[in-house]
Amino acid sequence: MARVIELHKSVTESNDKDADQLRKELKEKGLFLINLMSSPGSGKTTLLSRTITDMKPEVEIAVLEADIESDVDAERIEALGAKSIQVHTDGMCHMDAGMTRAGLEGMDLSEVQIAFLENVGNLICPAEFDTGAHKNVMILSVPEGDDKPLKYPLMFSMCDALVITKTDTMSYFSFDIKKCIEHVKKLNPDVEIFPVSAKTGEGMRDWEDYLKRNMAAILG
Amino acid sequence: MARVIELHKSVTESNDKDADQLRKELKEKGLFLINLMSSPGSGKTTLLSRTITDMKPEVEIAVLEADIESDVDAERIEALGAKSIQVHTDGMCHMDAGMTRAGLEGMDLSEVQIAFLENVGNLICPAEFDTGAHKNVMILSVPEGDDKPLKYPLMFSMCDALVITKTDTMSYFSFDIKKCIEHVKKLNPDVEIFPVSAKTGEGMRDWEDYLKRNMAAILG
Repeated sequence: MARVIELHKSVTESNDKDADQLRKELKEKGLFLINLMSSPGSGKTTLLSRTITDMKPEVEIAVLEADIESDVDAERIEALGAKSIQVHTDGMCHMDAGMTRAGLEGMDLSEVQIAFLENVGNLICPAEFDTGAHKNVMILSVPEGDDKPLKYPLMFSMCDALVITKTDTMSYFSFDIKKCIEHVKKLNPDVEIFPVSAKTGEGMRDWEDYLKRNMAAILG
Repeated sequence: MARVIELHKSVTESNDKDADQLRKELKEKGLFLINLMSSPGSGKTTLLSRTITDMKPEVEIAVLEADIESDVDAERIEALGAKSIQVHTDGMCHMDAGMTRAGLEGMDLSEVQIAFLENVGNLICPAEFDTGAHKNVMILSVPEGDDKPLKYPLMFSMCDALVITKTDTMSYFSFDIKKCIEHVKKLNPDVEIFPVSAKTGEGMRDWEDYLKRNMAAILG
């Protein structure tokens, strides 16, 4: 059974200040934190499972699973032998820096180089709260449609990288990846984009190289 | 071009009171209002398009499209010859009763029997705000996965009906519909469930019968 922590709204004056402080402390401790955001059911846990399995020999990964309820995701990650903790957000639709800190403090991270915060499944609210992560990564799954950048512009504008998942279903859903990337680049010219299929493995290598490259840059 | 209304947070004392008042007024005017909620990309607009086309000879339908930005959905609905208005929520992650009222007031609904509020794509926040609708309908699309009821229990508990969309992709995504329905019924024993594929037309008839039945019951 995965360990579960019940969280409540942070009562601090400034989330931005808390986030900057957490980011700095994690860097000093040698931990690269990635905030992973998406709609419900976009394949966050499946992407993480494959990433953990692929990178395991080289990099130790831990996952902080944030959900309103349930602990199905943490159990899937633990089954791979990776460290994981489940946090419940007490109905809240996003994670903030105080909640992220509380979750990370529940794990022994001394041997870990990369920690993923799997944020609550929501394309809106999480984009407004700095969690203290070094990189914000968004996932868009092919079945959601290529018009999503037009409808959720803040999330697409603020992310450092976009992973387009379930690319093996692209022809079935008439997903126009060129058009989708055009929309995204208009909002966010510097974003790095990784089309992947965790099912077939296509594109996983580029995504994992992104993680290693940024881990090296941030942790030095 | 679809008409667009920019909305701002309602400043009323009680959303619940406003919602009850709106519900009563709409019934008196002979308008059945349905609040349609789901994740981004679950196929709300595609379901509505097919519903409008199928029911057009008998029932006049209008759609209130709520989005943070963009007006792609309203344009799709207008192309079918149905009345539609786009509201922008000013960054807000849900609609409330005051916003719904403002949106409806932007359309001439004198000949309309059913109005759909296509709520912001979000499985969390919209479940907490009564919009004044007579029925709350949730959509879960097959690619999102059969475990979603465990993760977003409030939405699955408060809806009157659940439409499971994109059923034509069920075998591809290993979606266990029996398990999914079991999870939902545990949270919400009275919910009516409609598996549909707007692509093949499978299940559309039952969903449309639900609409007609409830329209008759509410409008008398």
